Amino acid sequence: MSSAAPPLELVVRPTLTLPAPRLGERLGCAVTLIVETFQHTGSFKFRAAYSVAHSVPHPRLLAASSGNFGQALAYACRRLGKGCTIVMPETSARVKIAAVESHGARVDRVDTSVKSRAARVAELAAEDPEAYVASAYDDPLVIAGNATLGREIAGAGDFDDVVVPVGGGGLSAGIAVGLADRRARARLWGAEPRLANDAARSLAAGEIVANEREPATLADGARTLSLGRHNWTILRDALAGIVEVEEADIAEGVRRLFLDVNLKSEPTGALGVGALLAEPERFRGRWVACVVSGGNVDPGVYRDLLTEAS
Amino acid sequence: MSSAAPPLELVVRPTLTLPAPRLGERLGCAVTLIVETFQHTGSFKFRAAYSVAHSVPHPRLLAASSGNFGQALAYACRRLGKGCTIVMPETSARVKIAAVESHGARVDRVDTSVKSRAARVAELAAEDPEAYVASAYDDPLVIAGNATLGREIAGAGDFDDVVVPVGGGGLSAGIAVGLADRRARARLWGAEPRLANDAARSLAAGEIVANEREPATLADGARTLSLGRHNWTILRDALAGIVEVEEADIAEGVRRLFLDVNLKSEPTGALGVGALLAEPERFRGRWVACVVSGGNVDPGVYRDLLTEAS
Repeated sequence: MSSAAPPLELVVRPTLTLPAPRLGERLGCAVTLIVETFQHTGSFKFRAAYSVAHSVPHPRLLAASSGNFGQALAYACRRLGKGCTIVMPETSARVKIAAVESHGARVDRVDTSVKSRAARVAELAAEDPEAYVASAYDDPLVIAGNATLGREIAGAGDFDDVVVPVGGGGLSAGIAVGLADRRARARLWGAEPRLANDAARSLAAGEIVANEREPATLADGARTLSLGRHNWTILRDALAGIVEVEEADIAEGVRRLFLDVNLKSEPTGALGVGALLAEPERFRGRWVACVVSGGNVDPGVYRDLLTEAS
Repeated sequence: MSSAAPPLELVVRPTLTLPAPRLGERLGCAVTLIVETFQHTGSFKFRAAYSVAHSVPHPRLLAASSGNFGQALAYACRRLGKGCTIVMPETSARVKIAAVESHGARVDRVDTSVKSRAARVAELAAEDPEAYVASAYDDPLVIAGNATLGREIAGAGDFDDVVVPVGGGGLSAGIAVGLADRRARARLWGAEPRLANDAARSLAAGEIVANEREPATLADGARTLSLGRHNWTILRDALAGIVEVEEADIAEGVRRLFLDVNLKSEPTGALGVGALLAEPERFRGRWVACVVSGGNVDPGVYRDLLTEAS
């Protein structure tokens, strides 16, 4: 079944390459935004999800996610004619549950005060040996899917720097691989919330360091406990460094994208712009590709972020 | 000078062609958005402004505008090395004045309780015979500029219908010309606020009918008194019809673009989606290209529009 289905390269929407001169003037560098907010299901996660669902022979996929990966996997499985179950906390916003269900997937709600999501996934996996348990970020197939974006970036320009949001590291590791495939000379920077700076601490320590608990950052896509092991193997060598971004700069990144570029971004998607705002001197006079990884944000959250817009 | 400058086709940003399956499912048709929110200065007006400023031999341009055309003309003139003066009401929002000035144009503020903008433009034109007075919508050069978008639409697909916001008619007339250039078979529909329905009344009457006063529609780009004469000559034959859009559907159009497509639009830009929401039966089962003409909207206005988002 999956061998007859078209490969990711034929179904992915090419990323939107958007010069941002007004933002660049403000920051003292040339900025080209690499925009994944218009990707299928609204974030880069489709690349990873489709890559996994297409590559494994299993007829059903199973994952824990309350965010973009769940939607993306549900949609990818529908396109591929595979079954899909997403484990979500009982307390998830109705709109997020509805989004997953709208793509034909089954949502399994778990009371996380009684049982962890991982435990529930393990239960379901034991019940259905033909189901593949998909990780949102730590899987070579995830990296391979996200590498398509790295190759697109390399094809869009001879950038000095590429700045990319970092949570579990699946996107940044994939981009590192894709840039290397194309022999791109760009330096690769991770943009990570300071509140969730496990990747920065890992680079400093030379080994994976985990956050003690899920960090309460506005960038909900970066609320991971640690980098994935597969990603770490790549990132420890490929990253030029990590820029730690304060919450205020994440919010200001969302606002600048709205005001200067007419672009709706989710907070996690604005981490890269937040990094440029946080450390402009690092990028002054250079040509920077800045990845805006996704656009799915609750309207109430977005409205509050706009309140401080000038 | 202008003969050495590159033509519009070489400096315009190609429009963004964005399939919108979720919106289409809701409406019962296939929707492809034609997105001009990422055009230079954030709206299609750059096409018209650059076309005018590039084509005329005058070293300076002069126009009345408190909106997108002023910004676009200022930016076009800067690129072409020409002078530019934009007449704006003294009461204009500071951010709009600043946007025009940021492109190096001079802003002439007029107290409209004492003198009309048109009268002030006439004064300035008398003082400077070498300045070209540019109309935001009623000029064959405006139509020629906007025709580039019509040709791009024709190249993007064999659409059944094209839906486009109508104010003064410069965009719709330009698109009509561009579609005809490419022998496109699509029917062309105008989307007009019901509060400012002079174009609908003009089509019914067979002659230009004007609004008595500037209509107070949310779609501020459609607050024109009447269609331009050049545009009317084209539109009276080229339009399949006009869909009149209630204010509530304009607002819902902005919200649907935010929720279903991750797209920031200004209210005028959402008129086309508002038309699909208003009369879905007209487009059921068809392939519709829907033009989102611009994205520049005050954050406060946008925040209020999002308040009712589900």
